[in-house]
Amino acid sequence: MNDSSHYTPPKVWVWEKPSGGRFASINRPVSGATHDKALPIGRHPLQLYSQGTPNGIKVTILLEELLAAGHVGAEYDAWLIQIGEGDQFGSGFVGANPNSKIPALVDRSGAEPMRVFESGAILLYLAEKFGAFVPAGGAARAECLSWLFWQVGSAPYVGGGFGHFYAYAPSKIEYAIDRFAMETKRQLDVLDQRLAQHAFVAGNDYTVADMAIWPWYGGLVLGQLYGAAEFLSAQDYQHVLRWADQIARRPAVRRGRLVNRTNEGCLRERHSAADLDALAG
Amino acid sequence: MNDSSHYTPPKVWVWEKPSGGRFASINRPVSGATHDKALPIGRHPLQLYSQGTPNGIKVTILLEELLAAGHVGAEYDAWLIQIGEGDQFGSGFVGANPNSKIPALVDRSGAEPMRVFESGAILLYLAEKFGAFVPAGGAARAECLSWLFWQVGSAPYVGGGFGHFYAYAPSKIEYAIDRFAMETKRQLDVLDQRLAQHAFVAGNDYTVADMAIWPWYGGLVLGQLYGAAEFLSAQDYQHVLRWADQIARRPAVRRGRLVNRTNEGCLRERHSAADLDALAG
Repeated sequence: MNDSSHYTPPKVWVWEKPSGGRFASINRPVSGATHDKALPIGRHPLQLYSQGTPNGIKVTILLEELLAAGHVGAEYDAWLIQIGEGDQFGSGFVGANPNSKIPALVDRSGAEPMRVFESGAILLYLAEKFGAFVPAGGAARAECLSWLFWQVGSAPYVGGGFGHFYAYAPSKIEYAIDRFAMETKRQLDVLDQRLAQHAFVAGNDYTVADMAIWPWYGGLVLGQLYGAAEFLSAQDYQHVLRWADQIARRPAVRRGRLVNRTNEGCLRERHSAADLDALAG
Repeated sequence: MNDSSHYTPPKVWVWEKPSGGRFASINRPVSGATHDKALPIGRHPLQLYSQGTPNGIKVTILLEELLAAGHVGAEYDAWLIQIGEGDQFGSGFVGANPNSKIPALVDRSGAEPMRVFESGAILLYLAEKFGAFVPAGGAARAECLSWLFWQVGSAPYVGGGFGHFYAYAPSKIEYAIDRFAMETKRQLDVLDQRLAQHAFVAGNDYTVADMAIWPWYGGLVLGQLYGAAEFLSAQDYQHVLRWADQIARRPAVRRGRLVNRTNEGCLRERHSAADLDALAG
């Protein structure tokens, strides 16, 4: 890598080479499908196309919570989209999400299949559909929406910023690591101060805001993301740790975390409750 | 700046120095108030605390659109929060938004003042409050929510990624500029393909998704952000340009863009329609 202080950007940016370290092969400056491939369709009204990353498990956690709360309409098929293999550039997936990112949901319960993409939108869509885990109005709804959007707008600094430059980039760039470590710690402190005063992020109740935030920030303090708990001094965020540990123990969270993962003891696909019953205990 | 290929991160990250180029003085690894300062309160039910950045004008554009559509309850006071001066760390602002970012809204129309923060949450909150610019249900709502969350989760790669490393960082880091230019162009292509098929982002109707996306991606192609239109080959995104130009001509957009800015011909504060009538023509 060149000494960065001597670099001058060109007048017009040109894509010259794959760039991006571990994920170089799947990063492109253009969008759209690279190959024809229809999406599979299972027997339930809800069809999820996803991978068990932090953004993916947000949705499987919510679906398992809905089922645990008795919403039988939340039964779902979860199909694995392997982003490292480029499955997100298949024509069927692009039709479900033109942004080519997991997760994507297709709700086939109505007359026409309906797509929803972006994990935050899927959480809100499902919570509204079943009338659960999002307050219907008033200050409680405003607080829940504020924190849900906070996660969506903040985590790119953790994932696309800190995680990339700390764990995945082809070389360690001090300035970028410092910039995004500082912001990640600031965000953890925002959460820590909030959770010092409230049981859950949006207040007294467990909501989609917790389900959105836990996979990222819980993952950081519990040492499950980027192996960075020591680097970020996770032990300084005691209230986040208390909350993260509490949520990790929920049966639906334990189930949702296992879906669409290729690791030992996890499920590549999920098509019925029985698929998880055997694993999650 | 050191040759980045020789840098090894420490075991534990420590905040040693202000970092971050142009915005070094306002970036911190901790959250919370730095000084006591109450927020001013005007005569309208809606109190906005903001600055006329892309995230700030999302909300003033929606408020002006609501007023133009006859929703008199959308009258508002807009107070300037100068982020370069650290106003977002005043105790009153932190109470309205513990994340210390503009914009923050306080709705005083009910029995108790109600805060909403994060621009995406404020757009959705106001659109639902007035029953305008967001579909109430069905596929139209799912599409609008998907694109609204798409903007919130994507623009950090434009603002905190591309814009920072291209325009503001203390030195030009080739790898980071390449990474975020590629992603910014991919996002522009996602929008371009969408707008090739639809009048507006969520379909046939102008919604909060357009109001969220226009200040960022319209700003890029119209050359108003980072002076990067040539670098990003903005002319390649003809459908984004068509849409961006169309929205720029809307009277409410012209009004909303002028609010909470210190530039000549703009309004530092907005307290009545008359404040803008004289300027926006």
